[in-house]
Amino acid sequence: MFGLLLSVLAGKNPEGPPPLWMMRQAGRYLPEYRKTREQAGSFLGLCANPELASEVTLQPIRRFDFDAAIVFSDILTVVMALGHPVSFDEGPKLSALTSAAGLERDRGCWRQVLEPVYQALALTRPRLAPEKALIGFAGAPWTLAVYMAGGGNDEQKAARLWAYRDRDGFQLLIDRLVDCVSQHLIWQFEAGADAVQIFDSWAGGLPPELFERFVVQPTAAIVHNIRTVLPGAAIIGFPRGAGLVQLERYASATGVDGISIDPSVAMAWAVERLGTVVQGNLDPLALVAGGAALQDAVNDILTATRSKPFIFNLGHGILPTTPIEHVRELVRLVRGA
Amino acid sequence: MFGLLLSVLAGKNPEGPPPLWMMRQAGRYLPEYRKTREQAGSFLGLCANPELASEVTLQPIRRFDFDAAIVFSDILTVVMALGHPVSFDEGPKLSALTSAAGLERDRGCWRQVLEPVYQALALTRPRLAPEKALIGFAGAPWTLAVYMAGGGNDEQKAARLWAYRDRDGFQLLIDRLVDCVSQHLIWQFEAGADAVQIFDSWAGGLPPELFERFVVQPTAAIVHNIRTVLPGAAIIGFPRGAGLVQLERYASATGVDGISIDPSVAMAWAVERLGTVVQGNLDPLALVAGGAALQDAVNDILTATRSKPFIFNLGHGILPTTPIEHVRELVRLVRGA
Repeated sequence: MFGLLLSVLAGKNPEGPPPLWMMRQAGRYLPEYRKTREQAGSFLGLCANPELASEVTLQPIRRFDFDAAIVFSDILTVVMALGHPVSFDEGPKLSALTSAAGLERDRGCWRQVLEPVYQALALTRPRLAPEKALIGFAGAPWTLAVYMAGGGNDEQKAARLWAYRDRDGFQLLIDRLVDCVSQHLIWQFEAGADAVQIFDSWAGGLPPELFERFVVQPTAAIVHNIRTVLPGAAIIGFPRGAGLVQLERYASATGVDGISIDPSVAMAWAVERLGTVVQGNLDPLALVAGGAALQDAVNDILTATRSKPFIFNLGHGILPTTPIEHVRELVRLVRGA
Repeated sequence: MFGLLLSVLAGKNPEGPPPLWMMRQAGRYLPEYRKTREQAGSFLGLCANPELASEVTLQPIRRFDFDAAIVFSDILTVVMALGHPVSFDEGPKLSALTSAAGLERDRGCWRQVLEPVYQALALTRPRLAPEKALIGFAGAPWTLAVYMAGGGNDEQKAARLWAYRDRDGFQLLIDRLVDCVSQHLIWQFEAGADAVQIFDSWAGGLPPELFERFVVQPTAAIVHNIRTVLPGAAIIGFPRGAGLVQLERYASATGVDGISIDPSVAMAWAVERLGTVVQGNLDPLALVAGGAALQDAVNDILTATRSKPFIFNLGHGILPTTPIEHVRELVRLVRGA
């Protein structure tokens, strides 16, 4: 059975409501997630435990009947697979990298670190109704490089400065990330993922030339690498914060089937101008607020996307402070029930 | 004498190099600034001392012969004028506001708090060569509301949530800010400013409907208020991070003469699509990096803007780590000397 989300991602526009899922839908706003997370002992412990990761992957589907489950993991697993240590304490902690030297490891080492993700996918697919899509994911090279160079806040200064000062050295880091991310996504498909999403959370604010070189080209290379092994693989890209000219370029040059749109972009514009399927773009804060703000925002999105293949989602991850009742209301509003 | 910057802002395209200044040009990258700042004892002490504020305003002109001086002050002075306390410790510290009630003060109270800015302008204008422009400034209502509601980091969450939950209450805060910012800018013109810039540092990432209501409309109201008293007043807007559709709307609807462009926007696009004078947009990190990255970035900007009235600037404030030699190199590159 070819479920609703995959059908839309293949370019079909269904008669009924659009498929619906939420970025970070397995997360702290859910009491059952918090309980399993406590059982795992730590965030990384949860990521490394396939049975518990599968459990939290399925929790939001049980509660809200979303059209897709996204495997519980973290984008920084790829950084760890490359041999750069990561710890979590409120947010991720990494020592700042200044050279790609030392990141040469073979696929066997990658696989060892990333294995729990594939096991979680393999456990989850048979537990999920066949019409529900199982989504794998990875961080995009630019976003991972931002974390490795010194962190995602403060406008990604360390990564940008490295890219300006030492273009070849920085390109080497990006190339290593392209290799590992491509392989990670291929392995996720092989383990049971029906589609994957590439998260470029720090793609915003980049000068156009850096966007082309470090967002568009690496993403195009990853899509090419995946499709060489798995022709027709369903891929969504999320260059969060990208400007409109850059979104158009990303849509035409990377080969992704769908683009996830952040809340700053009018969906009417995205539907009209991007040649791909679009996904998004409810402001997570409108979901926290609820009430008239939520109703208006959902209605605007549904009206703007009626004529095109579209996947309802947030424009960014759901916030831990989101009331569950507001998520229920969102499901009702989208499905018209 | 009608200097180069004002002439360009009035729509003229000079034969020679464009006028040049830098946001935050009076700042920590300059040893003479650090010395005066130490003499003042604190950042707020420097803002409140017209003689020392005038001194640091003039320092970058002496060193680099820029075409404009921008008065040394802080955008949060308006918040203090409204009666909401602000302290500085690394960054600004404000207690989070949840209602505009209590912000009703008369113009006399505003003037008392803001007086040092006018005195600094009055001291500076006669010390500045007549062909150099003296720029006043203020924070835009949205950006000030972001600080008042809970801070500018973390995607302005508190302000956005307030705006969704309590639209009328938030609008009241915006309206109070429109009043005080308008008056503050008028007083700055009267004290000697030749032009003003409105900084909307947190305009990025906003859903289009919030951008229209809280960025475009308040800015249009401020421009209207100023021009009612001072017809022909020269005004630059800086909606940092605004998407391209939103930049076009800002250009056509607010009445500003010029728009400062952040580094994410291609200047060729800005010159072609915006009906205003454009200013910008060198990435401050390219200036920190220097070398080929700086040369390429400057050349790209100069090439893209050759045919239109244009003011060379950074796309955001200069960073404290910027080597002075790179600023000298920038001046050489722009002026072709």
